[in-house]
Amino acid sequence: MNERDALRVLAGDLPHAGDDAAVVDGTVITTDMLHERTDFPAGTTRYTAGWRAVGASLSDVAAMGAAASAAVAVYADDGFDREELTRFVAGAVDVCEAVDAEYVGGDLDEHVEFTTATTAIGSVTDAGPVTRDGAEPGEALCVTGEWGRSAAGLRLFESGGDEAVERANDLFRFTPRVADGVALADAATAMMDSSDGLARSCHQLAEASGVGIELERDAVPVHPAVEEVAADAAERFELAAHFGEDFELLCAVPEPEVESVREACPAGLTRVGRVIAEPDGEEPSRVTADGDALPDRGYTHGDG
Amino acid sequence: MNERDALRVLAGDLPHAGDDAAVVDGTVITTDMLHERTDFPAGTTRYTAGWRAVGASLSDVAAMGAAASAAVAVYADDGFDREELTRFVAGAVDVCEAVDAEYVGGDLDEHVEFTTATTAIGSVTDAGPVTRDGAEPGEALCVTGEWGRSAAGLRLFESGGDEAVERANDLFRFTPRVADGVALADAATAMMDSSDGLARSCHQLAEASGVGIELERDAVPVHPAVEEVAADAAERFELAAHFGEDFELLCAVPEPEVESVREACPAGLTRVGRVIAEPDGEEPSRVTADGDALPDRGYTHGDG
Repeated sequence: MNERDALRVLAGDLPHAGDDAAVVDGTVITTDMLHERTDFPAGTTRYTAGWRAVGASLSDVAAMGAAASAAVAVYADDGFDREELTRFVAGAVDVCEAVDAEYVGGDLDEHVEFTTATTAIGSVTDAGPVTRDGAEPGEALCVTGEWGRSAAGLRLFESGGDEAVERANDLFRFTPRVADGVALADAATAMMDSSDGLARSCHQLAEASGVGIELERDAVPVHPAVEEVAADAAERFELAAHFGEDFELLCAVPEPEVESVREACPAGLTRVGRVIAEPDGEEPSRVTADGDALPDRGYTHGDG
Repeated sequence: MNERDALRVLAGDLPHAGDDAAVVDGTVITTDMLHERTDFPAGTTRYTAGWRAVGASLSDVAAMGAAASAAVAVYADDGFDREELTRFVAGAVDVCEAVDAEYVGGDLDEHVEFTTATTAIGSVTDAGPVTRDGAEPGEALCVTGEWGRSAAGLRLFESGGDEAVERANDLFRFTPRVADGVALADAATAMMDSSDGLARSCHQLAEASGVGIELERDAVPVHPAVEEVAADAAERFELAAHFGEDFELLCAVPEPEVESVREACPAGLTRVGRVIAEPDGEEPSRVTADGDALPDRGYTHGDG
């Protein structure tokens, strides 16, 4: 059974497990595990790893339209180097500070591979949690920030060289969109973060809401670093739409509210398409880009 | 740097990290990682693993005198077997139900070894969180439940045979002392759970509170299963006091309140000694058992 099938098994048993985070009495909770082999390319500093791992959980809190309050992490490695551990914690502390949350420690564990398990909690706003299943035909599909950032970072890690690796580390330290998520909580009818890339996230949101999505390729905001590593427009779109791990937000917003909520989003909000009625037939026609079917394809961790 | 030294490094950076769990705005949060190699002896079912792993985090919530509300887990393995995964989740769900909390899912991850990272959250009572540092000379030292349960379980796992393994699994599925922790929150001046065994926990509580502890060996409540695996009284005390992983509570309670709070503890509460003024000189004389120094020695995971 692969990870996707296993998640389906779990979703049947656990009603709260289908979204980016679970909600219990107004408290949002989410957990993730990352590994050296699959998630931290050679050259990733421990500071970046701490930032990114804790940031991934904070992003899931943001995706629920909740304010993040705290995060914890298990730091596991085949030995503890004081400098590495201190830098990891500094990254964890700093990414929490960036979203007004508090890093409150965790656990240490001897392990065969550098591995970290992070958990973040937060509180839903008066608007309540924003799940993936409320998008309605006629609404605007919007995204925060700029896309392709992690793809460009990975290319720079792979190219090597001190300067490239330093820039790659910068690109890997994203700001979790907590402020944006809170700003969007009232207006957005459906929301999620983009762990699996824009294309796959569109499919997931469309499936959860029982709608279709029409994407406009040229409207997708592409991170400037993608320009450097992509050969042409097709590769730019590939990196921005299919790579994933950008930890931006994707949401459906009623058209009349797009302008006002955009101003409240520190990372910016871009209209990239619209929600339509559920199309007849099967995937991938549920999501189109400039009229062509957009495949439900992302970056498979560990294969890249 | 070993795990203990690494924890000291962290404690300096993270003021909330010294207790069983961190407290943020009245919410308690704690996280742990367990591995097949070090934490789940051969014969441990996935149901027992799910129960025990999530239970360990719920125990940390209990140790703060907080009511548990929810738990999540990352389930990592080198492939996902539907039956194993379903049984793990069933164990996680059942241990949460046993303490009136909710298991709300988590994450899956491909990994080289069966590993689980669990996180539990809860809410402090009006009495506030109970930390390790408030014990005062003259108070009673009390424990919940019966000790040596996990030691007996490990012996039975090692002995093998279907019946022994089944009983070992039963022994490994402890009830986290959440109801007891909440009952003790008002009266206890210091509290912790016994992950590292009674002896080491006494040292930790005494050090945090700046006191000494006089333990009475015969007062320590020993689990009936220990009788079967221990050859004599010395071995019984060894398993009950040094093995650890019983996830019982250890606390200091003012003498006049011991009787009334005992009645409120479903697992029972036993007076096992008393808190004294901080002795002159060094460890291990800080903690004595029947007048002899009790070494700060526990079971080292992975060595046993």
